[in-house]
Amino acid sequence: MNIYDVSERAGVSIATVSRVLNGNSNVSEKTRQKVLTVIKEIGYTPNIFARGLGLNTMQTIGIMCSDSSDIFLSNAVYFLEQNLRKNGYDSFLCCTGNELQNKKNYLKLLLSKRVDAVILVGSSFLETNHKDNNYIFEAASKVPIMMINGYLNHPNIYCTLCDDRQAIYDSTCKLITEKRNRILFLYHSKSYSSLQKLNGYKDAIIFHKLFLQEDLILQCPHNIQEIQNFLNKHFENGLRFDAVIAAEDLLAVGTLKFLKSKGIVVPKMVNIIGYNNSLLADCCEPELSSIDNHVEILSLTTVTSLMGVLTGITVPNKTTISNDLILRGTTDFVQ
Amino acid sequence: MNIYDVSERAGVSIATVSRVLNGNSNVSEKTRQKVLTVIKEIGYTPNIFARGLGLNTMQTIGIMCSDSSDIFLSNAVYFLEQNLRKNGYDSFLCCTGNELQNKKNYLKLLLSKRVDAVILVGSSFLETNHKDNNYIFEAASKVPIMMINGYLNHPNIYCTLCDDRQAIYDSTCKLITEKRNRILFLYHSKSYSSLQKLNGYKDAIIFHKLFLQEDLILQCPHNIQEIQNFLNKHFENGLRFDAVIAAEDLLAVGTLKFLKSKGIVVPKMVNIIGYNNSLLADCCEPELSSIDNHVEILSLTTVTSLMGVLTGITVPNKTTISNDLILRGTTDFVQ
Repeated sequence: MNIYDVSERAGVSIATVSRVLNGNSNVSEKTRQKVLTVIKEIGYTPNIFARGLGLNTMQTIGIMCSDSSDIFLSNAVYFLEQNLRKNGYDSFLCCTGNELQNKKNYLKLLLSKRVDAVILVGSSFLETNHKDNNYIFEAASKVPIMMINGYLNHPNIYCTLCDDRQAIYDSTCKLITEKRNRILFLYHSKSYSSLQKLNGYKDAIIFHKLFLQEDLILQCPHNIQEIQNFLNKHFENGLRFDAVIAAEDLLAVGTLKFLKSKGIVVPKMVNIIGYNNSLLADCCEPELSSIDNHVEILSLTTVTSLMGVLTGITVPNKTTISNDLILRGTTDFVQ
Repeated sequence: MNIYDVSERAGVSIATVSRVLNGNSNVSEKTRQKVLTVIKEIGYTPNIFARGLGLNTMQTIGIMCSDSSDIFLSNAVYFLEQNLRKNGYDSFLCCTGNELQNKKNYLKLLLSKRVDAVILVGSSFLETNHKDNNYIFEAASKVPIMMINGYLNHPNIYCTLCDDRQAIYDSTCKLITEKRNRILFLYHSKSYSSLQKLNGYKDAIIFHKLFLQEDLILQCPHNIQEIQNFLNKHFENGLRFDAVIAAEDLLAVGTLKFLKSKGIVVPKMVNIIGYNNSLLADCCEPELSSIDNHVEILSLTTVTSLMGVLTGITVPNKTTISNDLILRGTTDFVQ
């Protein structure tokens, strides 16, 4: 008999059982009684409930991400695994791709392997059609679900997000204050995170009473050479801009290369701001000003929350981390 | 009763059982008889041996890599997972770090989850002390082990490698032919792959009867800023060179930035060649000439071999893929 059996028979989450066992007050009296009754019935000995003390848990956390070749995601996974290992947990990573059915299959597979919790990394796990998120809610009735850069409202889902909207809003405002008024916004995928960033851009334009020009919002390819061709085509059709905000560093680097090929001087004629503050920001020339979304802190916070959940400490369901703009050579702000 | 039981009782690998079932001739008569006897004894029905036809396999492949934030490894994992999924297999990734004990624990964990095979990605799974590889040999007695960029001699271990030594040898020879005679070799980790690359460099120098200068072989940091500081210190101590071969693109980009900061013109005064032909090669300026180790082909070949092993086709234990030097702006070879 283990905590899984208690959770299943009582029809509550493991986190709830754990809270009851730890005398945590954040459980209704009714639920507390239900759990205690099951424990009595099946002869479960709560005092062996401690990590590693013979409890029938695998000490394994499932991690899901959509694309292991994405720099932000692979760094998040790296920090998650490092910190889980420090806490005595192994982890399994499933790279699901973007198909909903594959995401569902993988989550099922992880649960069948009796992982202690699942971490969903990246906003691509938020489906536009809210009903499509049901498989996550179902899983949350069995194990704690942690989300990085996604938010779903459920008592057993714990989310850590960076404030993408605010970061892009602040950077756009900064560019406007610096007298830039044709600011191009570039994004690639229509993920939740991209849409948040786009909202930040739009809100800043509107706040400053500038005219929101849809032709300055472009969905572009995800390959440095293709971005250059893409921008070249728009340029020939008359597109002009004096600043760029890109939803990812890769898009910013492609833009920088395009501008240099046209003899347009960065940052003098065009300012560029990227997103993620990745390795790429250090490689290009001039080096790229970029928004740091603190991937290491996001991952650390997620692991800290998870350890809290698994040991019955009350953990907030939503933690939001602010982002910082790291200024380098592609902007010429007076600091 | 399933193929695992047959394999265990007969004391042969799953691949061997599979070969017997498929009438493959690459099995000794003695082994064939042993397998058939076990099958008869335990009542295993060979005609249900087909992928997905009710066989008690999880259709899951375990993948191990040492560091998910490494660009080469994370790309390999991405292509492996994509191609495994196309073949109807799920996969679990374990990022083990570099500690031997963690690698052992993870391999054990994967086997306990009854994966159909394990893929070890990257040469960091080859320990310098050969005895330390025993845990891999033990695992190979249970399931097929696939290695990418590593080679161990065992009938149930299948290896796909890129010829790192040859690629660096060829590039070094090319630089020498182009009248470069103080060629700096930069590497970061002392992995099997790095040592192969170093051998290629040394062999080329010796073949061309140049003097092998140990001060031109440097183990350097793995961070663009730190590489610049590192080279600056050596430069102040008198280090001079007219070409650089780096074991990874990141090291080449750091070198390029250092040279530019000193006003040393690339490629006119110094040629630079990187390794991996990664995203970074496209970001810097001039763009980086780099050796392409065909990560996608390596991954595809590994999956093809694995599917062969699992269906009983005879698969070579070692497949070596040649690498190509992709010329860009940091070299000025007459083509």
